[in-house]
Amino acid sequence: MNCNVPTDITFSFAGFRQRGGRTGPHQDGWGIAFYEGKGARLFHDVAPSVSSEIARLVEQYPIKSKNVISHIRRRTRSRVCIENTHPFQRELWGRTWVFAHNGYLSGIKRKPLTFYQPIGTTDSEHAFCYILDTIRRRFRHPPAAAKLHRLVARLGDEIAAYGRFNFLMCDARHLYAYCTNKLCWIQRRAPFARAALVDADLEVDFSQHTTPRDKVVVVATQPLTRGETWTQCRPAELCVFGNGELLASGGNDG
Amino acid sequence: MNCNVPTDITFSFAGFRQRGGRTGPHQDGWGIAFYEGKGARLFHDVAPSVSSEIARLVEQYPIKSKNVISHIRRRTRSRVCIENTHPFQRELWGRTWVFAHNGYLSGIKRKPLTFYQPIGTTDSEHAFCYILDTIRRRFRHPPAAAKLHRLVARLGDEIAAYGRFNFLMCDARHLYAYCTNKLCWIQRRAPFARAALVDADLEVDFSQHTTPRDKVVVVATQPLTRGETWTQCRPAELCVFGNGELLASGGNDG
Repeated sequence: MNCNVPTDITFSFAGFRQRGGRTGPHQDGWGIAFYEGKGARLFHDVAPSVSSEIARLVEQYPIKSKNVISHIRRRTRSRVCIENTHPFQRELWGRTWVFAHNGYLSGIKRKPLTFYQPIGTTDSEHAFCYILDTIRRRFRHPPAAAKLHRLVARLGDEIAAYGRFNFLMCDARHLYAYCTNKLCWIQRRAPFARAALVDADLEVDFSQHTTPRDKVVVVATQPLTRGETWTQCRPAELCVFGNGELLASGGNDG
Repeated sequence: MNCNVPTDITFSFAGFRQRGGRTGPHQDGWGIAFYEGKGARLFHDVAPSVSSEIARLVEQYPIKSKNVISHIRRRTRSRVCIENTHPFQRELWGRTWVFAHNGYLSGIKRKPLTFYQPIGTTDSEHAFCYILDTIRRRFRHPPAAAKLHRLVARLGDEIAAYGRFNFLMCDARHLYAYCTNKLCWIQRRAPFARAALVDADLEVDFSQHTTPRDKVVVVATQPLTRGETWTQCRPAELCVFGNGELLASGGNDG
């Protein structure tokens, strides 16, 4: 989620967490990161999100944030433990960076790392460290936004060659969403309408919870709601969101 | 807390969280880190620990860990926000490092930083970044434990010159406790006895919750229990704990 004003994610999360064990098979742990300024607080659990005590708290406790990344895991090879549970986080330029990945990356661990080292054993965390290593080496200080977007897009293409690389990443300002095969998004803004969750019996009238200037983008592998039109991302497309708006998007040809 | 087997901290935390708003004045947020392997999961909140929903969950949800660091904050200068809420974390050598500080450090921000940058504005996080920067520069790979202990002790002395520096730090193996003026610890091992919290009306018979080979060290600024003998740390003393044992301790003369 990326917004122009701090917004809680309880509605979307109520549906999303069902996919971790009930409406979906991703029951090998889950995590969520809520940004506040340049920092973030993360919650992780190895229990399936549908039954996790911590997920129950997160659904009921409306933490407001302009950038949220959540992930439910279906493990491929690496074991189920906190170290392997997305989202991952690191600090760069005095900001928290958060990363979550859907897919697989065969052979990515052959890519050498300099500054950042994985704590767990997933391909995903290795890819994240490689991304941050490259950004850090290229830009000692934060560059103009467009330069950073181009580098992230290039890194997405480079790493996607190792398998399937749908990822979400946030640098405390912008939300990066890179698609290999499964990613879609929606922007909600005035006039707000109603929507119903796909994964749970819950409906919301967004006009009751918003002001006319609110803008909220939600990105997910599959639409979380019915009664709304989600935009499918194209293969090799990077979408960059800031303040609840699509700032840039482009594929191999972009 | 540092233990030889994964142990939950619900008893100690039930007393400790009272100091964040009820039996103590540290009501400017709180946090806790639970290690699992080389990783850790952290919980942070800006609400006082005595009334925080997340603290309630942590007290009731027995997460087992060999290393736990928790902190309740009474702010000196920096504002109350997640970025300024201890414990702080960074990655070094593919391990999560966690740090919490009690005291103040005037002028510490003049110390230049290279690799790690603070995300918030506290003196404490700056000191942590300086410690990790120094360790990283000195040891590209993990050195023998005794070498690392000596460097942490030297850094403690160097930084303590800026004010009051009681800190807890963990490198996913050992727990470092450095004292300026306020730190004490206790080891619990067989034969286990009973103890009662100072800050809450709660008593426990540790023999009901342990096996004969368990060893548990708890470190705190002030004793958490009555009916047990806590060891006061000396000024400028660094105590290093591993597997529920005191591994090393030494002051300026050590």
